Amino acid sequence: MMDFNILLFDDFETLDAFGPAEIIGQMPKAYRINYCSIKGGRITSVHGAPIETMSMDEVDTSRILLIPGGIGTRKLIADSSYLFALADLANKASYVLTVCTGSAVLAASGALDNKRATSNKLVYDWVTTLSSQVQWIPRARWVVDGKFYTSSGVTAGMDMTLGFVSDLHGIDESYRIANYIEYTWHQDKDQDPFSKYNT
Amino acid sequence: MMDFNILLFDDFETLDAFGPAEIIGQMPKAYRINYCSIKGGRITSVHGAPIETMSMDEVDTSRILLIPGGIGTRKLIADSSYLFALADLANKASYVLTVCTGSAVLAASGALDNKRATSNKLVYDWVTTLSSQVQWIPRARWVVDGKFYTSSGVTAGMDMTLGFVSDLHGIDESYRIANYIEYTWHQDKDQDPFSKYNT
Repeated sequence: MMDFNILLFDDFETLDAFGPAEIIGQMPKAYRINYCSIKGGRITSVHGAPIETMSMDEVDTSRILLIPGGIGTRKLIADSSYLFALADLANKASYVLTVCTGSAVLAASGALDNKRATSNKLVYDWVTTLSSQVQWIPRARWVVDGKFYTSSGVTAGMDMTLGFVSDLHGIDESYRIANYIEYTWHQDKDQDPFSKYNT
Repeated sequence: MMDFNILLFDDFETLDAFGPAEIIGQMPKAYRINYCSIKGGRITSVHGAPIETMSMDEVDTSRILLIPGGIGTRKLIADSSYLFALADLANKASYVLTVCTGSAVLAASGALDNKRATSNKLVYDWVTTLSSQVQWIPRARWVVDGKFYTSSGVTAGMDMTLGFVSDLHGIDESYRIANYIEYTWHQDKDQDPFSKYNT
């Protein structure tokens, strides 16, 4: 049983967190989902969903860390103590997954230095200025580089999470889950139908 | 500004609530999303997400009511006082949307009598025994009958919500939202790729 820690912050994008949670939630024998924040307590999504979070001190940080995106990331990238804590968490985790602008915060922390990564194409110009040490990929549904999984915007996080499940547990498990939740999985991580860079 | 009330209960299916919330959340000038339960207080999704809810007494119940599904519905269909309260809320609301087995609870309350409705096809046999007064549709992504919108399982709730937005605000608004959240909208409500009744 592995801890799957979703690191929330105020004004996170709702589906960035709960899309992956719905998928990982279909494997209750393999994963325990923890809804966390650095200090714990009430966190509210940008769409007003009030979530009671655990502190990162209360969970096993050695397994999986998922970082959603959202407008709340704009504040975090300027918070050096937050970025320091995040870099430490990313270092400890076996796998780090980001959705949308979650990769912006992770890049700002330095944890993505020398890694290939992607983000939401709608704010691609902003994200890529946050670190010149990251090899940004302009056209991808999601990108895998070692233990780092980074996705494009919002729903792309569900495709990436199914890709993560496929990599660790086999593609049949991803098909089972996608079918159960009636989700049409975009399973090719290199196809990015929403990128403005698409031709 | 209309209240969009999502009626939560313990062991609701996570994405049934937060998929539609992500979509309606893209129209902050038109809708205020309230995360509610009949009595208010802490509600936990089947995937362990702890949500602080408002009581239905604190919100405007005359507008939109969304009822998610999930394993928690099994308990609700046997709770006559809950069903009585739900029938009253459904009667007051201008629109009632259900996702997955949310329609099972609504059917058990009597609110869907003489209406066309659908539900999750994986548990279709169970759902349809709950009321013989409902005209159950075995093959549909979602069904509209007057003020009632009922959808198939989990992600179908996102398609239905985009359909609801299209009906009230025009299809371009649905395209805008789907594109923004990088979601491939199944926009034909009669196409049901996950129904076991499909040929």
